[in-house]
This record gives sequence, structure tokens and C-alpha cells, in this order.
Amino acid sequence: MICVLKTHVPQEKEEELIRWLKTQNLGVHVSRGEKQTVLGLIGDTSAVDADLIESLDIVEVVRRVSEPYKTASRQFHPADSVVDVGGVMVGEGLTFIAGPCSVETEEQVVGVAKSIKASGAHILRGGAFKPRTSPYSFQGLKDEGLKLLSLAKKETGLPIVTELMDIYHLDLFDDVDCIQVGARNMQNYELLKELGHVDKPVLLKRGLANTIEELLMSAEYIMAGGNEKVILCERGIRTFETATRNTLDLSIIPVLREKTHLPVIIDPSHATGKSSLVPPMALAAVAAGADGVMIEVHNDPIHALCDGAQSLTPDQFSALADKMRTIREVVS
Amino acid sequence: MICVLKTHVPQEKEEELIRWLKTQNLGVHVSRGEKQTVLGLIGDTSAVDADLIESLDIVEVVRRVSEPYKTASRQFHPADSVVDVGGVMVGEGLTFIAGPCSVETEEQVVGVAKSIKASGAHILRGGAFKPRTSPYSFQGLKDEGLKLLSLAKKETGLPIVTELMDIYHLDLFDDVDCIQVGARNMQNYELLKELGHVDKPVLLKRGLANTIEELLMSAEYIMAGGNEKVILCERGIRTFETATRNTLDLSIIPVLREKTHLPVIIDPSHATGKSSLVPPMALAAVAAGADGVMIEVHNDPIHALCDGAQSLTPDQFSALADKMRTIREVVS
Amino acid sequence: MICVLKTHVPQEKEEELIRWLKTQNLGVHVSRGEKQTVLGLIGDTSAVDADLIESLDIVEVVRRVSEPYKTASRQFHPADSVVDVGGVMVGEGLTFIAGPCSVETEEQVVGVAKSIKASGAHILRGGAFKPRTSPYSFQGLKDEGLKLLSLAKKETGLPIVTELMDIYHLDLFDDVDCIQVGARNMQNYELLKELGHVDKPVLLKRGLANTIEELLMSAEYIMAGGNEKVILCERGIRTFETATRNTLDLSIIPVLREKTHLPVIIDPSHATGKSSLVPPMALAAVAAGADGVMIEVHNDPIHALCDGAQSLTPDQFSALADKMRTIREVVS
Amino acid sequence: MICVLKTHVPQEKEEELIRWLKTQNLGVHVSRGEKQTVLGLIGDTSAVDADLIESLDIVEVVRRVSEPYKTASRQFHPADSVVDVGGVMVGEGLTFIAGPCSVETEEQVVGVAKSIKASGAHILRGGAFKPRTSPYSFQGLKDEGLKLLSLAKKETGLPIVTELMDIYHLDLFDDVDCIQVGARNMQNYELLKELGHVDKPVLLKRGLANTIEELLMSAEYIMAGGNEKVILCERGIRTFETATRNTLDLSIIPVLREKTHLPVIIDPSHATGKSSLVPPMALAAVAAGADGVMIEVHNDPIHALCDGAQSLTPDQFSALADKMRTIREVVS
Repeated sequence: MICVLKTHVPQEKEEELIRWLKTQNLGVHVSRGEKQTVLGLIGDTSAVDADLIESLDIVEVVRRVSEPYKTASRQFHPADSVVDVGGVMVGEGLTFIAGPCSVETEEQVVGVAKSIKASGAHILRGGAFKPRTSPYSFQGLKDEGLKLLSLAKKETGLPIVTELMDIYHLDLFDDVDCIQVGARNMQNYELLKELGHVDKPVLLKRGLANTIEELLMSAEYIMAGGNEKVILCERGIRTFETATRNTLDLSIIPVLREKTHLPVIIDPSHATGKSSLVPPMALAAVAAGADGVMIEVHNDPIHALCDGAQSLTPDQFSALADKMRTIREVVS
Repeated sequence: MICVLKTHVPQEKEEELIRWLKTQNLGVHVSRGEKQTVLGLIGDTSAVDADLIESLDIVEVVRRVSEPYKTASRQFHPADSVVDVGGVMVGEGLTFIAGPCSVETEEQVVGVAKSIKASGAHILRGGAFKPRTSPYSFQGLKDEGLKLLSLAKKETGLPIVTELMDIYHLDLFDDVDCIQVGARNMQNYELLKELGHVDKPVLLKRGLANTIEELLMSAEYIMAGGNEKVILCERGIRTFETATRNTLDLSIIPVLREKTHLPVIIDPSHATGKSSLVPPMALAAVAAGADGVMIEVHNDPIHALCDGAQSLTPDQFSALADKMRTIREVVS
Repeated sequence: MICVLKTHVPQEKEEELIRWLKTQNLGVHVSRGEKQTVLGLIGDTSAVDADLIESLDIVEVVRRVSEPYKTASRQFHPADSVVDVGGVMVGEGLTFIAGPCSVETEEQVVGVAKSIKASGAHILRGGAFKPRTSPYSFQGLKDEGLKLLSLAKKETGLPIVTELMDIYHLDLFDDVDCIQVGARNMQNYELLKELGHVDKPVLLKRGLANTIEELLMSAEYIMAGGNEKVILCERGIRTFETATRNTLDLSIIPVLREKTHLPVIIDPSHATGKSSLVPPMALAAVAAGADGVMIEVHNDPIHALCDGAQSLTPDQFSALADKMRTIREVVS
Repeated sequence: MICVLKTHVPQEKEEELIRWLKTQNLGVHVSRGEKQTVLGLIGDTSAVDADLIESLDIVEVVRRVSEPYKTASRQFHPADSVVDVGGVMVGEGLTFIAGPCSVETEEQVVGVAKSIKASGAHILRGGAFKPRTSPYSFQGLKDEGLKLLSLAKKETGLPIVTELMDIYHLDLFDDVDCIQVGARNMQNYELLKELGHVDKPVLLKRGLANTIEELLMSAEYIMAGGNEKVILCERGIRTFETATRNTLDLSIIPVLREKTHLPVIIDPSHATGKSSLVPPMALAAVAAGADGVMIEVHNDPIHALCDGAQSLTPDQFSALADKMRTIREVVS
């Protein structure tokens, strides 16, 4: 960590700061220039509050030289991680996660599961506990929904991923292969800490307004507890643009490749909010090097009624899957 | 709710949609223009998924005419709400909430409490459970911190507000007068639902990237459960600007005045992240009509060492409090 | 245009508004519901100030049903436009625009031009007039730079695209095949109007904080003047993320496909600001259906010294071009 | 300027970089730590391209220690600047700039001018050349509008400020006391350079997505040309919030106070887009220490018809002006 002092700082202020830094168990390497002094802080700086130091009157700027995350960092773990989700090796080849937004009926979820399996999907997604902006909106089928997902898993052999909103629902998740942490809970640190002690893979979605570094820090919360089976997922960030629901930040893929060894999945369905935009963005994700995509697929007649929503039909998904496989061959 | 169809929609598609809307227990008032049809949806639209309808192929745009929140809305509750926090009536006059960011020692928290009381503060703030970006940063004194807050309350008579990060810590909060929900948990719906059943006021902080409407929907989650003692708090939003930690959105004050009856508190300390910016923004908040401000104050020698951080000294707070009271007189 | 009135608007206010709208040469179709009235405004609404009407006390919301742009809209021009840039047909097949950020020396620009031509590039880019944040930074070689571009064009036969910052430099641009309008000038309306009378193609870059609709409105400024040879270019938008210089919004590609007939080019070099991110984002752009990419390439030893900057080397560009062509075949 | 190298950089790469930096006329102070090397760049770094250096493979981070602007910086000009606008000293006391958005008729502009003068306004604003998103919207009365402003000036003695969109209109601006550069032209560098040679004050509006540092760099463009009479104006930035047209960033006031000696004006009318929000935000601006406010006022019956738009009536402005003066006394 580098701490640049302001110009013309009184000598005794500078020395007080250095003494205080040393009480934090940091080595301090002082480099005095003509105009200003630069302090190099040596040791375990991951617990240092850089904002606090930067806010001090005599400090110009503080910059980390090593990243604030360790277990998630590629620096200490150069090889790509592969996460085993019920036998599917995420991070090895291209993984397709597909399924309906919400679990609604046995017919729906089993029907969709069969059709996506036929198109080559590897993992079934589906929401049982639903985070909704309004308390008056449908909140999901909850434990009933989890049972229907289990049924679909039994029928098709597809492992399942579904969202956990509170750690105290965990005992309902026995048959779930991968626990999803939704965008709104990405910085629910109590939940993350608990997931650090769970022996299941976690699919961690980036929050709507969270930086890539914050995403990695949230992964670090889970990994610091001992659970290193973390999959990262980009699902769009909030910007001023309103033509799409959110702005899918695909540059996260090469950026994460450099910074971390964890697998990266892209969810173009929630990002764009519109089915016609999903296939081009899914193809782009694969071209940019994603380890997989997560796509909403349904065969629900209400939606089909108007050909609408953000979900693809099973046929559209099947055609898209073919193209994604071909692009993967080009880029790998 | 108004639903504008696209031009040249086939008659049968339009009718299918209308039939489906009616199955959702909505009255549908159809207005056919020369080029397009406008549907007025009548009844309880608060559970309707506007995004889903807007995503349908034949729909141009969906707009709510009534707000999606009810209990929080000024429309159904025209008079300003006043929330009783341990005898302090928030929403009646100008409330000062002050105290240290984190509770550290008895000496610190009791010392600060006494000094802010002398300057006219009404409520003591202080963090015992701290949401930190890094798992390696100090996570707060937890139950020990709560005990120190109680001590400061006993010594000064000031009611206390402090953050709850998980509902399962609730039994430790018996002596807490007002529960804070932090910005990162604003859409932790399971937590909000539980707080709907608690008989304590809740200070709900706006998320870093949440709209004013989403803030009100989160308030609605708590209120829908029966707990109507909600205080709203702006603490800065995330924008492209980096000169301040976040961008304090003071226009939220008059906007919330029009939309809701709930009291509005401004936290300029977290928004700006720099003590020299706190007084001007606190004065601005009062001038714009805030019901109160929440300000970090400490008398910690480490910080005082370099005159730094985002916290004011007790003396700075005292001078600021005087000016805020004078401005309040001008605008009320 | 649909104008939804508030509930309980006095009859005479409503009638005044309708009379006033009619004086604006609009037909008004009134639909009175139980609670509120909806006005359908018929006629040429492209000059109507929707913000003004929405700001009126009795108006809830105003929404355009037809887009505010006409010449740029796919609605009135269903077939894709192809723009002839010195014989290169942009919008037909995949176009590669490449070259150095700034024109520096004859050796540099001619050298780069030859190498990119060998790799299959179609158009040479290079800045002669440079918009720089600081008045003290290098402002480009100006007319001297334009002469060097001409020389490179003569040597290679590649048409050239370069930025025009002020219409009064236009007579220097005789040998330029396509005029670039930079992101900072996207809403310099006086410049756009003048370009409407110029008989050269215009490459219009999206502003850092401009919506897709605003980009199309700026295209409309040029087209309304008679010059319909407009090429749109995405080069990243400003968001809270700092890991990349800007956030490349690739979803603009399918969104523009639906809204306009104009060709769409992606510039991953300026968006990401880092050469290692350019190839994955260029491949993603092609996978999402872009008509072309614009990529910085240099063979400048100063940069090569440290393998750095956002520019690719000629060899890197050549390898990338091969992959882009293969992906294009998959998606078209 | 501080340049932190990555860890484990080969010695010869490091030396090559240092040699190259020295060819840029920079002194280089090398500080080698255990793990990484820090270079202090000494000399005139305002022309150095920090982005380029940061993009080099061996460089971790580059940070300016001195600001990239000089003439605008308070560091070299500690006293507040006062700008003389037709006899009104902006930066000395509290300045009110008021008037209609667009100049429409003699009756309108003279009528408004008289009424705002009676309420204590110091400068008349009014748009003659209007930057409009749509080429089909009203573009202003242009030279005719300037003549009406002159007339209002003659009748009331109020100096006038109005927007210049192209330097080639300058000879029409003889009677204008202060030239406004609109938000969309904040980085139209050719315009800024020309204004550096004009002997009139310039009111420079912050762009919708421009940082405070970029605003100061644009001021520097004008000042570097010799015209130091620059007034800065905040008019709202673009964020994800849609309840207000833009988000008024009032923290710019204390931030600019620290960084620059130039006067700061706030425009709450364009920022909020809604008249009911203007008075609270204007009061907040004064409380935060603004040198003045710029407020839209009209007495146009079409608007008055529905009590609407973002403009205040003369009576509302008069009441607001009284309160602003009182708050100014409290904070100064």
C-alpha cells in the first residue's frame, strides 16, 4: 500500500502518522522527495482502512498495490478453478444454465427441464424464493417450489441452482446443488459469512451498482470461511441508459480473468429484460470468453400468448445453444 | 395503470391480452385511437408485474398512475408522520442524531454522548455490528458494543439508534430505541419482512444505487407487516463523480415530501466521506427541509492526531448545530 | 404521444390544456376513464416538448408512442443502410477500421497503414485534431497530420476517417473519406447541422453519458439537413465502474438494429483503455452483430517498449482479424 | 506525479521507462522498496498523459499529486476571484440570475426582467440560441432574441447572460455581458479556446456526466487563453434516479471552494426540471455556500395556465429571494 503525503506537511505530523501506522503492525518504508513524502506500507494491509487514512488532513492519496482480496486472487492461485455442481464441472468447457424465472407448476418446470436438457443445457435454474421490489408481488412457491425443482432433477438428472434469501432456509436446500446469492444480497455480509461454512457451491451475482472489486471482496467473504466453491455471475449494472433494463458489462469477463481464478457466468436475460436482446448478448458473452451463460427459458402459454417477456422458448434456446458452441470453438 | 399497445396490433392478440388481464382481477377500460389502443387497468394493481406486461410483444409502454406503494404514500395519509424514538419525536421539529461511526471503548462512546448532548443532539448513533467491504476489516464490537451504547444511554438519557444486520441478533437489541437498516441491506427483503413484526422504529437507509421509488417500496415491506414507524435516510448515491465518496442527493427531500408522510433524515458524513464537506451539506439539508441530520462525531485522539476523517469534533458539531437551528427557523 | 392526466383534475383545467394542445396543430383524442383522462396526441409530435407538458401540474405522465426521430428510424426505412466510405461499403459485411490514435510521423502512419492493410483492414483511422481534457496536452498535428493521412492513403489505397472538431476546419478535409464526430461533440448541434450539408459520410460517436435515443436524435440532426450517410459508433459509457476506462455497452447493437437502419461500429479500444481487453471485446462485438469494429493499432517503439497502452500491435490485430471473420460467419 | 511500478519488474524495463520519462523533460526521483519501485515525476507534469503511462505493462498506478489545472487552482491563487458582469460583482455577496428559459416576445422578456429586478435579481438570463435534443424543436429566436434581451437590459439596467453555441455568432453578442457555455458544450474545446481570447466573462456549465476535475480543466482551457473571467455553474448530473430530471450535486460547492478561486453558481431549475423542487434546492444551494443561483422565472400565460413547468412565477421568485438573503446571512 502506497500513501502519498501532501506537500509541506510539518515534520512532527508526518512522524505521528508513521508511529501510528507502525502500531497497526505495518512496516513503513519512507521515501522523502523534494516536495512530498511517499510511505510504502508493508505487511498484511488487507485489514487496513484505506479510506480512513486517505481522509487524514496530511494525506494526498492512498493506493493499494496488492489487491484487498487474497483467496479469490489469481496472484496466489494462478490456475483456473473448476467448481463441481452436481457433477457438472463449471470452468471446464462451456456451461449452459437454463430454466424458468420462477417455479410455477410441476408441468412447467419438468417440461422446461426436459426441453433444455434435449438442447444441451447442463444445469437447471428456477426461483422458489423470489426477491421482489413490491411486498404485494408473488414471492415464489418457497418450499413447494424447491420440491418441484427436485422432481425435475429426478426426472432429468440435471443438477439445480436456486436462490437462497436467508440462511435460515438452508435446511430446505438439501437437494439443491448450487446456492444462488442474488444481486440485492451481494453485500449481505451475514449471509455470505454463513455460506462460508456450507459445503455447497455458491453462484454469486454482482450487485446492480457494485464494482468488480466489490464482487471479488464478497467472494472473499465466502472463501475466507472455508468454502472456495464460488462462481461469479454478471447480470447487468445500473446506468443512465433506459433502453435496456440494465447495462450488461461484458468487459467484466477479461477483467475477472486477469484478477481471479474463479469461473465467470453471464446472465443476459436479467440484464437486458427483453427476449430479443438475449441471443446476441449470449453469443457476445461466449465470444468474450465466459465460462457459461444463464438463460431464462419457459414454455408457459401465458407468455407464449404474446411471444413475449425476457424468456426464450425452448426452440429459441436450442438454436442459440448451437451457435454458442460454435463460437466457443473459435475462441478457445 | 395505463398500458399503451403498439400500432397495428392484430385484433385477436389484443383481445387475448385483455382476457388475460381480466383473469388477474383487473378491470380493463379500452380506449381505441386511430393508431393505437390504450388500456386503463382498474383495481388493485400493486401486485401487477408492470415489467412483464411491458415486455410483451404487442405492448409499447406500461405506466403506473397510482404509486405501487400504499401505506407509505402521502395520498392515503396526508398528514406528516411523527415517529417516537425513545421519547424524541422525529418529524416534529429538527432532530439531531450524532455519535461515532463505530463503538470502540466506554470512554469514547460515553464521552462523545455527553458532548453531543451538551450541543443539543437528541439521539446517539454508534455502530456495534459493522458491514465492511472486506472480511478482514474490523467487524464491530457486536454485543459488547451494544452494552457500551446502553451505558452511554444510561449516563446521558439519549435514546440510541444502531444497525441490525441479521434478524437473529434481534434479542440483543432490547435496549436499542431505533433499529437502523444499512444501505447494503435496503433490499434484503427477508430482513425487512421480519422488521414488519417488530415493535421498534426503523431507520431505513437508501441503497447506493436505489431509486426513491425503491426506497419507498422497501419502507412498504416493513409497513405492510404492521410496523409503520419508519424513518427514511439519504446517505449518498453512487455516481461517476469521485471527488466525494458518494453524491448526496438532497433533492430527495422535497421529492419525498410530495410522495410520502414519513420523516426524512440526511446523513452527510457517509455521503461525502470528508469532514470538511459535512457542515455545508448539513446546512443545505436543513435548508431543503430535512426533518433531521445524522452526523458522525468523535473525540478519538488517533483521528484528532491529524484533524481528519469524516467525523466532526464535538466543538465543530456544536457550532454546526447552532447554525442548523437558525436555518430551520428561516425555512419553517 | 400519450398524455395521462392526474386524477381529480378540474374539468376547466383539462379543457384549457386541450385547447392549448390544439393550438400546437395537434389532434387530441380524449379518453375519459373513471379516475383519470388519457389524451392521445395525433399529428407531427416530433416538435412537441414532452418535458414541458409533463411538468404541468395536471399531467401525470407523457409518453411518446412513435419515436422522436424519423429519418433515422427503421420504421420508415426498413432496409439496412449501407454507407459508401471511399468505396468501402459499411453495413455490408464486416468492416475493420484500424490505425493509430494520433498521427505522429510519416513513418508511423504509413507503416501502420501498410500492416493493417495486409491484415485485411478496410479503412485507416488516425487523429490529426485531438480533443484533449487538458489544454496543455498534445493537441494533434492538425493540417500536417491530415497531410500524413493523405500520404498513407495514397500509399495503401485505404480510405481515411478522422475527427473534425470545428466546421471551420472543413476545407482541410477534402481528401478525408469519412468525418468523425467525437463523443464530446455528439450534442454540438451547430456542428451537426453543418454536417447535414456536407457531402461526406459521418461517423458519429456516442457521448459518454448519452442515451441511445439521444444518439439517434443527433444522427437525425445530420440527416434532417440532407446528409443521410451516417455511421453510428459505440465507444463506452461512463458508469461507476473504474476497472475499465468506460463501460462498453454492447447491447446497443441489437437495440439499434431494432430502432434504426444505420450501420453500427464498435470501438473497444477507447471503451476499455487497455490493450489486453480489446480482443475479447472486439470478438464480442462481432458476435453481437456489429457491422464493424474500430481498433487502435500502432507500431510505435515507445509504446512497444513496454508492450503497453490501449493499442494492439500489427501482429495482434492480424490474429484478431482472423478470429473476427470466423465469428462473423457463425452469426450471419 | 507519482508512478508506482508493479512488483517484480525486470531491471532493464524499469530503466527504459525512466529514460523515456526523462526525454519528456521530467525529473525522475526513484524510490526502490522491497517489493516495488515508486517514481516521483518532477517538473511540469500538466502535459503528461497519465493514462498512457498507467496503461504500460510494468506500471501499477499513476496519480497526480498536483492538480492538472493551474490557473484555475486555488493553490496558486488563494484569494476568491470576483468576476465583473456589467457592474455586478459575482463572487462578492450573493448573486441572483433570473429570467425565462427562452426569449419569446418583447412583452415576455421585458415583463419578466422588470419583475425580477423588483425582487432583487442582479442579472437577466434568457436563451436566444437554444440547444435542443431534437432538430425539429424550437431552436430559439437567435439574433432576434438577442435584440429583445438588449431591449430588456435597456429598460431595466440589468446585465444579461445568454448562451453562445458557436464562436461564429460572437459578433451578435456585443451587448451581452456574460457568455454562457451550455452543459453539452463543456468539452467543445475549439469553442473554449476561442473564448480564451474574448474579453467577456464566461459562465461555464458543468456537463451532465463530467467530473468536477473535468469542469476545472475546461475552465483552464478558457483561462489558458488569457480570459480569467470564468464563473462555474452546476446544473445537475446524470444518474440512475428518474424522480428528478437530473441529480443536483450540491457537494460541488464546498469541493470547488477547496480546489478553485472561481465563483460558483447553482442552477436548480434545469437540475430538477420541476418548479416545486426549485425553492428548496435554491435555499440548500445558498446554505451550502453558493455565490449565486440561476433561476427560471416567467410570466407566460400558457405556462401559468396550468401553474406548471420548471419556472417560478415572479411572486414565487420574490418570496424565495427573501429567504435566500436571510440564509446567506446565517452562513456568511
